[in-house]
Amino acid sequence: MKKLIIFAVTIFTMNFTYGQAKDTDSRYIPLADSIVSIAMNNMESYKILGELSKTGPRLSGSENLQKAEKFIFEYMKGCGFDTVFMQEVKAPRWERGDQEICILKSEGKTDKNLSIAALGGSIAADLTADVIELSSFEELEKKKDQVAGKIVFFNVPFNQKNLYTFASYGESVGYRVSGPSRAAKYGAVAVLIRSVTSLYDNVPHTGTLRYADSVKQIPGAALGVQDAIYLSEKLKEGRHLQITLKMNCVNRGEVAVHNIIGEIRGKSKPNEIILVGGHFDSWDKGDGSHDDGGGCVQSVEVLKLIKKVIGRPERTIRCVLFANEENGLKGAIEYAGLAEKNNEYHYAAIESDRGVFAPLGFNIDADSATIARINEWLPVLKRSRIEWVEKGGSGADISRIKGARALIGYVPDSQRYFDVHHSDNDVYSAVNAREMELGSASMAILTMLLSEVGLD
Amino acid sequence: MKKLIIFAVTIFTMNFTYGQAKDTDSRYIPLADSIVSIAMNNMESYKILGELSKTGPRLSGSENLQKAEKFIFEYMKGCGFDTVFMQEVKAPRWERGDQEICILKSEGKTDKNLSIAALGGSIAADLTADVIELSSFEELEKKKDQVAGKIVFFNVPFNQKNLYTFASYGESVGYRVSGPSRAAKYGAVAVLIRSVTSLYDNVPHTGTLRYADSVKQIPGAALGVQDAIYLSEKLKEGRHLQITLKMNCVNRGEVAVHNIIGEIRGKSKPNEIILVGGHFDSWDKGDGSHDDGGGCVQSVEVLKLIKKVIGRPERTIRCVLFANEENGLKGAIEYAGLAEKNNEYHYAAIESDRGVFAPLGFNIDADSATIARINEWLPVLKRSRIEWVEKGGSGADISRIKGARALIGYVPDSQRYFDVHHSDNDVYSAVNAREMELGSASMAILTMLLSEVGLD
Repeated sequence: MKKLIIFAVTIFTMNFTYGQAKDTDSRYIPLADSIVSIAMNNMESYKILGELSKTGPRLSGSENLQKAEKFIFEYMKGCGFDTVFMQEVKAPRWERGDQEICILKSEGKTDKNLSIAALGGSIAADLTADVIELSSFEELEKKKDQVAGKIVFFNVPFNQKNLYTFASYGESVGYRVSGPSRAAKYGAVAVLIRSVTSLYDNVPHTGTLRYADSVKQIPGAALGVQDAIYLSEKLKEGRHLQITLKMNCVNRGEVAVHNIIGEIRGKSKPNEIILVGGHFDSWDKGDGSHDDGGGCVQSVEVLKLIKKVIGRPERTIRCVLFANEENGLKGAIEYAGLAEKNNEYHYAAIESDRGVFAPLGFNIDADSATIARINEWLPVLKRSRIEWVEKGGSGADISRIKGARALIGYVPDSQRYFDVHHSDNDVYSAVNAREMELGSASMAILTMLLSEVGLD
Repeated sequence: MKKLIIFAVTIFTMNFTYGQAKDTDSRYIPLADSIVSIAMNNMESYKILGELSKTGPRLSGSENLQKAEKFIFEYMKGCGFDTVFMQEVKAPRWERGDQEICILKSEGKTDKNLSIAALGGSIAADLTADVIELSSFEELEKKKDQVAGKIVFFNVPFNQKNLYTFASYGESVGYRVSGPSRAAKYGAVAVLIRSVTSLYDNVPHTGTLRYADSVKQIPGAALGVQDAIYLSEKLKEGRHLQITLKMNCVNRGEVAVHNIIGEIRGKSKPNEIILVGGHFDSWDKGDGSHDDGGGCVQSVEVLKLIKKVIGRPERTIRCVLFANEENGLKGAIEYAGLAEKNNEYHYAAIESDRGVFAPLGFNIDADSATIARINEWLPVLKRSRIEWVEKGGSGADISRIKGARALIGYVPDSQRYFDVHHSDNDVYSAVNAREMELGSASMAILTMLLSEVGLD
């Protein structure tokens, strides 16, 4: 076993040369290098994201989103794809409003204005109440008799120990999503959460909340981390603290938004669709460059790179910019429903929605033979610095697609994603050109292999 | 072969579990997890780098460096190591001065002030001359009769195609290092280079030049990339262009600087030294957080983490903050000379001098059996997100050490390093806390394995 391990390590961690890929696959190494070369020299994804980011954030129902949809639709039409079209989708429309006030009062006097952002979907607030700090839902259950009439403050720090920050996000995002309804069940009047972020700054990070049907709706907001720590320290001092919370956010029913779709028809297998995509909407903070403007622009770039390097591919390659991922997933649901109705067959789908950072790997949701097959492509994928291919979850927007051979999540480095996610930190200046283009190239190389070589 | 590849891929790219490491090595997985946990929860490297960066950049001979040496020496003394001491080193002292003027004149009239930084070691300048643009040393040889009396402008773009940006740096840094003397040989009066950087901003990036002994010394400076592109475009217009170059930089002979050393003595093998280090000096731009304040603080952190998790290690662990890497390597030469004179045996050495970005791997300069042995530790090293261990160059500062079993370079992601390298962009705010701490943890885990398990 030891010898085998050494042998295997030697093969798989040393620099790859052409001969180490399967012969049929290794022919694609020069094409992969062309893809990398074009992406890195032209930096077109980065430039287009710069243009897109100028319209600002793209929340469903906003004027910004309408402008941004128009911009990207016109841009895609100029790319020379075979088809570019839109699918109308009905999505919820929520507006933050212009008032987000959170005043901490100590013994009746104003102590500090705390930095907050209403959680997406929250109702408005105009109240003053005592505060109770809780570290978990378990503690909520234990102290359920103490929360009536109070503001519940879920102070759950981001777990910095996980190497993969999405794991840390998963550990604490539940307080944002279901904290308000769980606290309301015991009579709480509002919920404040500590922002789910890996930074220690004071920028609040928003994101969706979900009201349970049977429970009274109460307002929810995220505190900047520094102010969450401040509030927690203050509560330890034992003085009588109250918080005045005023927010005029509002739910405005449904609005029409759009999935935006472009495709290059396949030469020999036009009915086998390889989808690449991200979601075009964003929260209303920053400009949504990482989440997920970047993933969308990368997906368009995949088609452009394939066109330049392959010409007409064997299979159909379709780029889908999904509507309304952030507060409804309505675009993904509508897209998958229409695809099923039209008997469309998705051979594979790749989603980019984890920020535009340097490539690390691909997570594959498929049977083990398919994952092993994609692993054989590592020598080709490594040309754009993909380090590994692993079994794992793909992404929310492609999760509704039925019958695909493989659903694939592009996995860039995650260290900085939750520094910016759902906040004013998610702006174009936080994107690095090389990191973004390597992502476009990685997705294009995998798309090329899926289309031209196939999974059998 | 195909089956074996699938099997090997399955082993080496899936999530590692304890059982896949050699039994003796896998016992270190919980300790590795403790190292990661302490580093990520405390963020001490990041905090100390923040303190260090306040003193500003640390060029040999500067007052800043004296202050910074004092700060880190006192800090290390407070860490409870067995010894903390300094070695005096004689290093060159160069000062930028307060005048760096580069005026582009078109048909005798001022067209634009170009953004420049004198190259380290350059003599002063006070001249006006015509400009000739060259794209390579080959072109210089072809046009050697046209350069006399002129300013040679080496316009060599950073090659964005390389996945590993140090390769691109290697391709163009020669114009900075030996461009001035090679152009002076044919009578050039000064050299301007396009800054060696992956960004397209206008911040000039400095770095050392080396004057050839037999050739007249002429001034050298780096142009911001945007101004290099501007100048190149202007030269295509065919008007009569001249540049006025004024710089009052000066070489001031030798100055005393210091290697700063701390160690924890080994329990059973105190004479086998494992060195971890970086260089403490920096260029006089930004604050040298990435190059290489961060590598130094990470190296100190390694000893702190080992002390916390292991207590007293089997072998001696020594942190060395080398003096004067940037413009002389005098610290490394002095250290290795003294070590040889004192018959010290370095079992292994690890250098961190490629920025404080997220971990990728370790480059090992050793025989193949040793590299294979370190590869067996991957399941442990992966606990801090090391992806691979490969044969490769280690680092300038440890390169002078003789007789070590392994010289090791810590390799973080390189995508953003040359955005900041040797420029005003290299500041503490360009450092990410998680990325830095994962580096400290990676180096500490490898140090632990070298000390406690050993290479046999």
